[in-house]
Amino acid sequence: MNQDYIQPDAWSIIEEGFDKDRVKSSESLFSLGNGAMGQRANFEEHYSGPTFQGNYIAGVYYPDKTRVGWWKNGYPEYFAKVLNAPDWTGIDVEINGERLDLAACAEVRAFRRELHMKEGWYHRSFEAVLQNGTEVRVEARRFLSLDSDELGVIKYEVTPLNREAVIVFSPYVDAGITNEDANWDEKFWEPIETRHSSREAFVVARTYKTHFKVAAFMHNTLFRDAEEVCAEPVRTQVREDKVCLSYEIAAGRGERVTLQKLGGYTVSTNHEGDKLVAAAQEVVEAAVKKGYDALLQAQKKAWAEIWEMADITIEGDVKAQQGIRFNIFQLNQTYLGKDARLNIGPKGFTGEKYGGSTYWDTEAYCLPFYMATKNQQVARNLLAYRYHQLDKAIENAEKLGFTGGAALYPMVTMNGEECHNEWEITFEEIHRNGAIAYAIYNYTRYTGDDSYIPEKGLEVLIGIARFWKQRATYSTAKNKYVILGVTGPNEYENNVNNNWYTNYMASWCLEYAAAQVYRVKEQSAPDYTRVAEKTGVNDAEVLQWKETAGAMYFPYSETHGVNLQQDGFLDKELVKVCDLDSSQRPLNQKWSWDRILRSPYIKQADVLQGFYFFEDHFTREELERHFDFYEPFTVHESSLSPCVHSIQAALLDRMEQAYAFYLRTSRLDLDDYNREVAEGCHITSMAGTWMSIVEGFGGMRVKDNTLYFTPKIPAQWKSYSFKINFRGQVLKIHVKASGTEFTLEGDTPLEVVVNGNRTKIMPG
Amino acid sequence: MNQDYIQPDAWSIIEEGFDKDRVKSSESLFSLGNGAMGQRANFEEHYSGPTFQGNYIAGVYYPDKTRVGWWKNGYPEYFAKVLNAPDWTGIDVEINGERLDLAACAEVRAFRRELHMKEGWYHRSFEAVLQNGTEVRVEARRFLSLDSDELGVIKYEVTPLNREAVIVFSPYVDAGITNEDANWDEKFWEPIETRHSSREAFVVARTYKTHFKVAAFMHNTLFRDAEEVCAEPVRTQVREDKVCLSYEIAAGRGERVTLQKLGGYTVSTNHEGDKLVAAAQEVVEAAVKKGYDALLQAQKKAWAEIWEMADITIEGDVKAQQGIRFNIFQLNQTYLGKDARLNIGPKGFTGEKYGGSTYWDTEAYCLPFYMATKNQQVARNLLAYRYHQLDKAIENAEKLGFTGGAALYPMVTMNGEECHNEWEITFEEIHRNGAIAYAIYNYTRYTGDDSYIPEKGLEVLIGIARFWKQRATYSTAKNKYVILGVTGPNEYENNVNNNWYTNYMASWCLEYAAAQVYRVKEQSAPDYTRVAEKTGVNDAEVLQWKETAGAMYFPYSETHGVNLQQDGFLDKELVKVCDLDSSQRPLNQKWSWDRILRSPYIKQADVLQGFYFFEDHFTREELERHFDFYEPFTVHESSLSPCVHSIQAALLDRMEQAYAFYLRTSRLDLDDYNREVAEGCHITSMAGTWMSIVEGFGGMRVKDNTLYFTPKIPAQWKSYSFKINFRGQVLKIHVKASGTEFTLEGDTPLEVVVNGNRTKIMPG
Repeated sequence: MNQDYIQPDAWSIIEEGFDKDRVKSSESLFSLGNGAMGQRANFEEHYSGPTFQGNYIAGVYYPDKTRVGWWKNGYPEYFAKVLNAPDWTGIDVEINGERLDLAACAEVRAFRRELHMKEGWYHRSFEAVLQNGTEVRVEARRFLSLDSDELGVIKYEVTPLNREAVIVFSPYVDAGITNEDANWDEKFWEPIETRHSSREAFVVARTYKTHFKVAAFMHNTLFRDAEEVCAEPVRTQVREDKVCLSYEIAAGRGERVTLQKLGGYTVSTNHEGDKLVAAAQEVVEAAVKKGYDALLQAQKKAWAEIWEMADITIEGDVKAQQGIRFNIFQLNQTYLGKDARLNIGPKGFTGEKYGGSTYWDTEAYCLPFYMATKNQQVARNLLAYRYHQLDKAIENAEKLGFTGGAALYPMVTMNGEECHNEWEITFEEIHRNGAIAYAIYNYTRYTGDDSYIPEKGLEVLIGIARFWKQRATYSTAKNKYVILGVTGPNEYENNVNNNWYTNYMASWCLEYAAAQVYRVKEQSAPDYTRVAEKTGVNDAEVLQWKETAGAMYFPYSETHGVNLQQDGFLDKELVKVCDLDSSQRPLNQKWSWDRILRSPYIKQADVLQGFYFFEDHFTREELERHFDFYEPFTVHESSLSPCVHSIQAALLDRMEQAYAFYLRTSRLDLDDYNREVAEGCHITSMAGTWMSIVEGFGGMRVKDNTLYFTPKIPAQWKSYSFKINFRGQVLKIHVKASGTEFTLEGDTPLEVVVNGNRTKIMPG
Repeated sequence: MNQDYIQPDAWSIIEEGFDKDRVKSSESLFSLGNGAMGQRANFEEHYSGPTFQGNYIAGVYYPDKTRVGWWKNGYPEYFAKVLNAPDWTGIDVEINGERLDLAACAEVRAFRRELHMKEGWYHRSFEAVLQNGTEVRVEARRFLSLDSDELGVIKYEVTPLNREAVIVFSPYVDAGITNEDANWDEKFWEPIETRHSSREAFVVARTYKTHFKVAAFMHNTLFRDAEEVCAEPVRTQVREDKVCLSYEIAAGRGERVTLQKLGGYTVSTNHEGDKLVAAAQEVVEAAVKKGYDALLQAQKKAWAEIWEMADITIEGDVKAQQGIRFNIFQLNQTYLGKDARLNIGPKGFTGEKYGGSTYWDTEAYCLPFYMATKNQQVARNLLAYRYHQLDKAIENAEKLGFTGGAALYPMVTMNGEECHNEWEITFEEIHRNGAIAYAIYNYTRYTGDDSYIPEKGLEVLIGIARFWKQRATYSTAKNKYVILGVTGPNEYENNVNNNWYTNYMASWCLEYAAAQVYRVKEQSAPDYTRVAEKTGVNDAEVLQWKETAGAMYFPYSETHGVNLQQDGFLDKELVKVCDLDSSQRPLNQKWSWDRILRSPYIKQADVLQGFYFFEDHFTREELERHFDFYEPFTVHESSLSPCVHSIQAALLDRMEQAYAFYLRTSRLDLDDYNREVAEGCHITSMAGTWMSIVEGFGGMRVKDNTLYFTPKIPAQWKSYSFKINFRGQVLKIHVKASGTEFTLEGDTPLEVVVNGNRTKIMPG
């Protein structure tokens, strides 16, 4: 844990007191998103202290030039990167001639932020003493509408406390923004046009190269106390990429004046490019017609609907409760599953770190959450995203010398292109390909949807199988297929030979793809014919896959009775993490890379990730032996690490350990375990937090079209509950120390297996 | 071979005919240097075609900001880089109002370059037809004085051929230059002052950060035919970083007009910073007093003295003869051993690629050449260079987590700081440390100088031994010390475990350092006391070194009877280079990095490099077995590869193969085998060429203070000869098919062993 300033609360994230050193952290934690757009919790008014400004539009990216030390053949020349979008949230505030700036005030009192997760809004309030002696109280509430996802709303209120004040609000829309993370100081946005009237402004800009066109807009209303006053600008500043309208209003001592700013984006991905301003005007008109109160009510209702299905309650442990809700809230802010073109960026709308928006995290971690808390189409959309990028995955593999339709999905992507360029990751962390095949299996297992594979999935599986077939090479010395030069899930090893997880996943992919080819051929002949024609797959090729899978080499230690993470793992100095001085942690900030690489320390589950995916393939004793062997060397310096370990610790009845891992995963960002929350939140691992309750404590599994549960409860909790959508039926599970209650919605009974006993659950 | 345009000639490098595509290549090949400064063969007059402008001053560098993909802990923040220096060679030429520019002429005829290696000058001549119809003949001769190493001389002659012409010569000195290889478009040179008179100009500039101060200067004289004419500028252009003086002279048809330009640098490393202009004036005055002819005579004489000792003659094979002389010439242009602060950059003064000026190449490849062709002090200076950087090597090791005086010399350096930042090289290519210890051993063996180790070398050996002691870790599984995560000499493998060469070198270093500690303790007690006080070395520590060395693990294949390049080498697909389609070569331009890494292909001698250094430790049969195992997988894509293989092939009596490797190493740049000569020549590997004659064909070795020879001769040659300086005696070896003649200078007989027979050679 690296920080402890967030107030415990079941439904809200609360910060009290102003601390400049926490601003960037809170900008991440209090971020807002509605699936289509999002933003860091930057102050509306000017702030001259350290801040990281960020507004993001889902799916809008830019092909930045690659920066590397020494160029390696096969690197992408350009890659898609998350792009800072025009800012519609800014409101400069001048009070009695002085610009309001919390970094420059004489005093800041009663500063408070609240992210109200239940209702989906963010509120900030403070009292400021200006250098000119004026004391004011400020309250600002902001939300991004779930109903109208091009719209955001800000209510910004100022009350002079010790004297009357002339207040100038200068709301603006600005496309002249920069990226923190830009490689070459290139300009990303080309200004196209601006329009404005006394209350509205529009700035249209287009991304260079990718030519996404965006109209950023605002609409302003002024109030004195509750009464609307005429909003005629005293000053209008227009640049080619910015419009700022200044409104002046006098307020008596104790009198509240309010600027209500509506804003947002219309984007050429959803509208014709020449009608963006008109579309924005429609959004504004509808919103104005509804009015602030109705918009806020609708927001509360929309979030209530999400929570109705997605909420997890924890009784008796407010920090644990706050943690899981923060995770569920951020996931829903990032991706709602409405748009198959989108995916789940590792930082969501909370930062721009990492080039693209899609990692193997989506398949390995996020899919189960969306499968269980949304309808089936959402999960299918996530799979289809990769299907649509299959051609680019084949191109990517060709760049690396693979042929004949072999597909290597990129490590990081926005549009199918690779967005990463370190050879040891880009070229070698190839296990990601396996997660994409596994997700197809996992989806089919959970949903029972047998149509996805014949319609789309089979082509993906064939491309992936072809990659593994070619990537595995035959070792005469071992008389087996080996996979040389890889980076496994544990990124604290590079260029190793025979990473057990990778070899196991490759072998499984080959077998699974073969089985699906046979199944589709038998059960969906027209689909098979279409796919066979398109891909050229045939029985002889499939036999080769099976031959390679069957003769795969897996490193194993007779001495320890464990599958070895990779060849040579036992040559390391096997000093456990608990015997390491804590001043050496986190390793990636304290040790040089070579030292990390030759150490036994594991960044995140690697062999154990394989045991998580393929739990059924191993006995409990085998899991225990591997957990006891590997966990003591694991430093959990990846956000994706604690959840898997929490699930496995729970399975092994190690509830204290499972609980500790649960806290770590659920409060990773709130408590900033990895000392990097200022750069944004770890969105994808938040789905792991959900899994560690549902699959870990709840012990939920799906086998043979049936739900299994082995409910357990940490000693710290009185009870917990979660809901899942299983094939159209909604089941609520409420676990107490005394036992587990199941509540089934609808009117069909559901047979489940609880602690090994088959039980029929009746509706109601 | 990638080009074949250099005319075969025993003493000169000659290009005939103008080809824009060859300009950058020839700029490298025709480079000049005098150990203190150097320059690419850029045209004096303006050239608008593709060119790579380069002037360099030995020891003048700049700390450029590091550029990497993803930062790794331990990378240097800044590193010293080779700096393009102010240009004193430029002469703009205007003929009848048109600027002379070979890229823009109507026609270029009779273009010819000659680098006269015997006498140390470069000459260029051509006839140009200008767009305005004027035809001129131009001859330009240039040399960098060996006697006065701050001075360069250019004689630039123009003769109108078809009409009279008004010619304006505009010689300039310009510090407003840029680096091709700059990382951040930073400015490197801060202009300080300019001074000029009608014939002279001085531009003083200082490097940012490192604050090297340089006065670049010129002095101009005009001639009509042989007669000096008044040089009063018609135009003087002065910028803060450039002075250009324009002289106008009319020439009748067939009348030759000449601008003689003296120029060069005075540098704050050799003069007080505020007296650079005065120092430059002295250089000019002395040169003017001597006059052009005397300067040229002195140049010829100085080079004659170098050749007297360093020349190798080859009868019957002009390309082989040209190759070896080009190599010897370039080595002497780069480093003359006069200044212990300098070293041998891999590109010398021919390019700016690679960050710094010192690689392990110096110790592994260059030392033998300088030991044998210069006096002993030159080689000792090369060792002392590392001694003076020991503190920085200890700092460097500390950054990577080593303690207690362990030293890791940088991969690349100018001032002791690391200049490379790819983790797999910077942190892992640690075998370089071994070469530095080996050079101390090699120097002592060859020169018999027993004083270097007690005076300086011992401290270096202790630092290096401490590094290896810590870097080797104990493997319980193997019950041996292992060295994990390294890159060996074969840079087509990264992060491998137990690279045989590295382990062998480490073990040898530990043993050798231990032996030297004991020897100094016994034989030079005061030195031992001083060093022990300074370093804290003691007997217990030395025993640990020996224990580690004795228990080192070496990968070995029983099946093949060879030491394995690294753990797991035999798991690769062992397809020989001869079975690889030639369209796949060079691998580093055709294959992605992961594919190279998992292939068996070897960039340069790796296990065989160990067999080269430690030839005595192995039988001829062992060498043969290892050569036959590894050479077929070797692609020789490093300039350092062919020479070692040539030497070993000769030792194994495979003269055709040895000859082929010899041609490849000696004509690597002339024939551009690696398709990169445009970036500069491969200077350090040129010493390998020398070795492949002296140690390869000549079979020269030193054992027990005695010279051994096993002379052989390629079938293509009638005879060859070389000279060596052995402990103050100069021995000439002349090898013919019919036998070998030895000629000894001086008056003391020398006992040598020829083909196993001990012989006394009498002087004369």
